[in-house]
Amino acid sequence: MKTLSIGIAGLGTVAQGVLMLLASNRALIEQRSGVSVNVVRVASRSAKPDVDLHGADFSTDVMDLLSDPRVDVIVELIGGETLAKELIVAALNNGKAVVTANKAVIALHGNELPRQRLRFEAAVAGAIPIIQAFQYGLVANQFSALSGIINGTCNYMLSAMESEGVDFDAILERAQALGYAEADPSFDVDGIDAAHKLTILMALAFGTDFEFDKVYVEGIRAITPKDISYATELGYRIKHLGILRSNADGIEARVHPTLVAQSELVAHVNGVLNAVQVVSDAAGKTLFSGPGAGGAATASAVVADIIATALHPEQTAGDSSSSRSIPIMPIEKISSAYYLRIPTRDEPGVFAEVTQILSSHNINLDAVIQKDSHAQGGSVDIVILTEDIQEAQMHEALAQLEALATVTAPVMRIRVAPQD
Amino acid sequence: MKTLSIGIAGLGTVAQGVLMLLASNRALIEQRSGVSVNVVRVASRSAKPDVDLHGADFSTDVMDLLSDPRVDVIVELIGGETLAKELIVAALNNGKAVVTANKAVIALHGNELPRQRLRFEAAVAGAIPIIQAFQYGLVANQFSALSGIINGTCNYMLSAMESEGVDFDAILERAQALGYAEADPSFDVDGIDAAHKLTILMALAFGTDFEFDKVYVEGIRAITPKDISYATELGYRIKHLGILRSNADGIEARVHPTLVAQSELVAHVNGVLNAVQVVSDAAGKTLFSGPGAGGAATASAVVADIIATALHPEQTAGDSSSSRSIPIMPIEKISSAYYLRIPTRDEPGVFAEVTQILSSHNINLDAVIQKDSHAQGGSVDIVILTEDIQEAQMHEALAQLEALATVTAPVMRIRVAPQD
Repeated sequence: MKTLSIGIAGLGTVAQGVLMLLASNRALIEQRSGVSVNVVRVASRSAKPDVDLHGADFSTDVMDLLSDPRVDVIVELIGGETLAKELIVAALNNGKAVVTANKAVIALHGNELPRQRLRFEAAVAGAIPIIQAFQYGLVANQFSALSGIINGTCNYMLSAMESEGVDFDAILERAQALGYAEADPSFDVDGIDAAHKLTILMALAFGTDFEFDKVYVEGIRAITPKDISYATELGYRIKHLGILRSNADGIEARVHPTLVAQSELVAHVNGVLNAVQVVSDAAGKTLFSGPGAGGAATASAVVADIIATALHPEQTAGDSSSSRSIPIMPIEKISSAYYLRIPTRDEPGVFAEVTQILSSHNINLDAVIQKDSHAQGGSVDIVILTEDIQEAQMHEALAQLEALATVTAPVMRIRVAPQD
Repeated sequence: MKTLSIGIAGLGTVAQGVLMLLASNRALIEQRSGVSVNVVRVASRSAKPDVDLHGADFSTDVMDLLSDPRVDVIVELIGGETLAKELIVAALNNGKAVVTANKAVIALHGNELPRQRLRFEAAVAGAIPIIQAFQYGLVANQFSALSGIINGTCNYMLSAMESEGVDFDAILERAQALGYAEADPSFDVDGIDAAHKLTILMALAFGTDFEFDKVYVEGIRAITPKDISYATELGYRIKHLGILRSNADGIEARVHPTLVAQSELVAHVNGVLNAVQVVSDAAGKTLFSGPGAGGAATASAVVADIIATALHPEQTAGDSSSSRSIPIMPIEKISSAYYLRIPTRDEPGVFAEVTQILSSHNINLDAVIQKDSHAQGGSVDIVILTEDIQEAQMHEALAQLEALATVTAPVMRIRVAPQD
């Protein structure tokens, strides 16, 4: 039996989950993995709370974990960027391995960190063992595309908007009351959190650097029940997806609301669940779903990383630097099909005007709905699904559409998920 | 870089997929895993076909792999039970590691094989890395339930019956034409194949022996488009599931058609795809889906096992023998909710007769549909969803129902998926 001594930085819900899981499932973990994990020190800036440390020493200075010679692995669960990063760097420089759930540190500062002896399964999609799938189960595969529901708040809100027909503001209030959204919800609903996770998935699946700044990000604030209902009518659902695709010009990396065909499994991942779908050359299309957050679920991923550290101390997370010169495409160069909702005056000739502009930009139509928008003044929504067209072309067409006197409000445009 | 020399027994589509994958993705695999895999010998009883062996030696006697001193790992891909088992046993006794995709050998003879240095990810659910999820990503979790779509033929057929309204015989003919079903389809449509896989999943997830004989098995031959359509009306889909559940009296292990609520993700896994849903104490409900068969998809799992063998030569698949005294429950003791379709004469008082019998067996109703059965002679289907009741009780009630003069044909009963 291998033994591993760990020090835990932080004592929040995830850290408590890790302590509990290591204690309650000790025999099972040892039996399956052949690894015995001992928590020798827990450090938290706050005074020692009323938590069973199962015999571990306690410090109020997380840096004490570095100087404890028994500690093989530091488990960083304090969150935030500054102190967490400092601790991770110092630990790695001290020859200790690190397991962290800190997506911001990895996504924003990952390039400054050595990747060896650093693991962060819990930073992406909670309990879902997606990073370990890249390293083990799908190790033989080249990936061509990935799409993920990687923010539970957005997925909860969009699911509820669809099932109840309520609008963004109403559902945000409820999500906040339920603890699914923060008082300042921007990090989740504007897509930043999802972009952090997509940055990490991109580095691991496609061998890029951690390029958060190059990920295109759009949140879900603009989505209305009307769009959800039109999407349903067209055979789609609106999901907030993180999308990665490898093509001849580089990697697409984008986070935005997306129309997903109801025939796709990912369209049926509802509520706070997360899911990651990967398209591989040998394994084909695989999907992994599960809870994206929560103390116990995240602890499951943290402990998996602790065990992996014992089994493969020198394994590198993701591809190594040799393959890191792949360009990440600007959004203007990406091709996509689009959903357009064009609010227009209810007058003869408007539809012809609209389609003429689209046609002049080589935008072909796949489906059309025309209905009363229920707004005052005899206006109608023209709803269109287009075929694939480059984003830059679509921008030009939208500018011309919105300049029309008969188009009464900004055009709503939502990208349609690529068919991978 | 670790190096591993392997010998491959068999040269069918999976073996060809393994050879191709190891060649085409060699650099990627080495970079991710730190393992370099060399195929030194391929053996197949048939004469050497026109396949690129990438420099490996060729034998027509698979036992040559045993005497080749370079071979560290034997990859058994010949299928069948006798020779395959003989080869696996001899290899393990010779100190070689074994990777196999042979579900029948593992499910039926697994107890006679040492579990160390024996891996069989590819034997269950094709490309889906479910066994590796037990060993790595979910290593810290105790599992309480598992349900899986683990036979692609059945799932294809039920999906098509639902979307097209066609009956079993018609869709079987098409599945055979498409190569999804064998000329003798029994192995798939009667549930044997799924039971093999469930036997393996049970041993790994719940630490039992390989107890194929104790798995309850029912196939899909009796399912009619009418049942699928009633199920839809009630908010369900009919899936052929393998179900494992741990409860106070032991382990439930059963394969049968099952009503799955449309709100469950597994209800939306359609076509030849497989999916395995696991309920864990920490990770919660996770689902893994992907292609369940095919040369490349299966090769993905085989190569993952080869790499795992290099990384963890001594790891044991699943829990070790210490936990193997868990009883497996007979189907009569299992409780379930049921869908019942009772063909009756269209006469007053019949519904009261039926519900009185159910009530006398403590069977409570959850939902009822009563409709013309479109059969001759004024008969109606009474369709009932019951609450949970023990199988033995249900059998007694069904015997009494079928003895009624007003019940015109055998009652169709389909179990409803447990709410885990």
